[in-house]
Amino acid sequence: MRVLVTLDGNVADPDQPQIRVDDLGLMRGDGIFETVLVVEGKPRELDLHLNRLARSASLLELPPPDRAVWEARVRQVIDGWSWADSPEMALKLVYTRGIDGGDGTPTGFALGLEIAQKVRDQRRDGVAAVILERGFDSGLAERAPWLLLGAKSLSYAVNMAAGREAARRGADEVIFSAADGVVLEGPTSNLILAKGRTLRTPPPNIGILPGTTQAGLFRAAERAGWSVKIESIGLDELTDADGLFLASSVRKVTRVHTLDGTRLPDSTALHAELTALYESEY
Amino acid sequence: MRVLVTLDGNVADPDQPQIRVDDLGLMRGDGIFETVLVVEGKPRELDLHLNRLARSASLLELPPPDRAVWEARVRQVIDGWSWADSPEMALKLVYTRGIDGGDGTPTGFALGLEIAQKVRDQRRDGVAAVILERGFDSGLAERAPWLLLGAKSLSYAVNMAAGREAARRGADEVIFSAADGVVLEGPTSNLILAKGRTLRTPPPNIGILPGTTQAGLFRAAERAGWSVKIESIGLDELTDADGLFLASSVRKVTRVHTLDGTRLPDSTALHAELTALYESEY
Repeated sequence: MRVLVTLDGNVADPDQPQIRVDDLGLMRGDGIFETVLVVEGKPRELDLHLNRLARSASLLELPPPDRAVWEARVRQVIDGWSWADSPEMALKLVYTRGIDGGDGTPTGFALGLEIAQKVRDQRRDGVAAVILERGFDSGLAERAPWLLLGAKSLSYAVNMAAGREAARRGADEVIFSAADGVVLEGPTSNLILAKGRTLRTPPPNIGILPGTTQAGLFRAAERAGWSVKIESIGLDELTDADGLFLASSVRKVTRVHTLDGTRLPDSTALHAELTALYESEY
Repeated sequence: MRVLVTLDGNVADPDQPQIRVDDLGLMRGDGIFETVLVVEGKPRELDLHLNRLARSASLLELPPPDRAVWEARVRQVIDGWSWADSPEMALKLVYTRGIDGGDGTPTGFALGLEIAQKVRDQRRDGVAAVILERGFDSGLAERAPWLLLGAKSLSYAVNMAAGREAARRGADEVIFSAADGVVLEGPTSNLILAKGRTLRTPPPNIGILPGTTQAGLFRAAERAGWSVKIESIGLDELTDADGLFLASSVRKVTRVHTLDGTRLPDSTALHAELTALYESEY
């Protein structure tokens, strides 16, 4: 099942062409997106997703997204979905710079999609990850905002290529490292490190996206007595953790069971505890 | 005027939607492109463009483009253009990974466009450029092929953002620098440095695109007795040059008259000489 609503509120057919060839979102990857998990009609962390959409728009100097309009489109897609048939939806919000040489009107749409079986399997079984160099140091994002390091842009070819490199190495996922030896993020997820009763994730100002799923988990964990910290994580700390997790909307909190080909200590029980905490938020 | 032909040979209306919302070219910037200059019906450096398209496809692990098919589409667009009305065309070749979750068939099209007045002005008047950090060292491309540094991908949001940063600094163009102090390229052009009777441009293996216009100029210049070198250029060499030029298909060989706000030595005569050499190739 798929449900498509354009930014101006029209329900459209996702099997038919809807985008012009000269849309800058296509021609230049010049646009932004969010992926929201919706469970039984309830969007998770919608406020944080819309905050991040606004932040990405600001970094790309796109017109500020109209929050009320996007909320209405989200509602339309949710209302058009058959929840009895499919209790979960990945809801993409896409917002581009519009037509090349046009009047500056952005292109936008909300698209509800099924969640792939592979993702469901990874939620349950965990993933093998490899560390791949991302090529920049953790100070670059603040020094060079034109590199858009904290924006969730449509220019994701590198993130996709990293996934193929992981597959070539027999793994499912990637953890990007910075040139100065700290951990960044996954291509489409945030890294969370658990040790003792503390959860840590790297700070957005090193050139990564602020996590929405990570934020939900950290709220719940803190309420349950965990210590939660947003601070740099050195690469050398990864193998010393009680558990590594990749958090993203559709994958929720996914366990990393293998890092660079080496099996990590069993974090199954920890994963169950964190998943229960995460779910308790909704 | 605009002429659009899809990869399967259909003439299509560029004012109507032709692309689905779930095309990976749009959703992930996951595709590649080329821009070919066509003058009075003759495409310039088409072989080099198609070579580069094939190289980009290989880096992104896209199905190898069928050269004969692309040549036929180029011919169709050229045949559909009114050369009497408009003697120059920018011909975009776009090739994406196709529909997300589809059967792997790429999306492709060839789109003929007018050349913007701004570009024509810059050919004549030259540009002011600023040096912007690109954030990686010149060894990264070979070390980390998943970063796609030598591919002409659709993920160009950073290149566009760099242009906006240049405008904010009162300039027209950008010259990207590597972390180790060497010159890379412009966001949509190659840098050429002239000193004495030598032309130099940086090598593609440091993470930049091999230039098609630069290649044409170098062939002509070498025949005319210039020495041409593909070798690293240090940032400190830029202000010591007789002339700096940004080469791209649609802008041809454009003179840089100002660098980081400082007027460079007048290279008008040199520009005229190099432009004549470049034009002599076609």
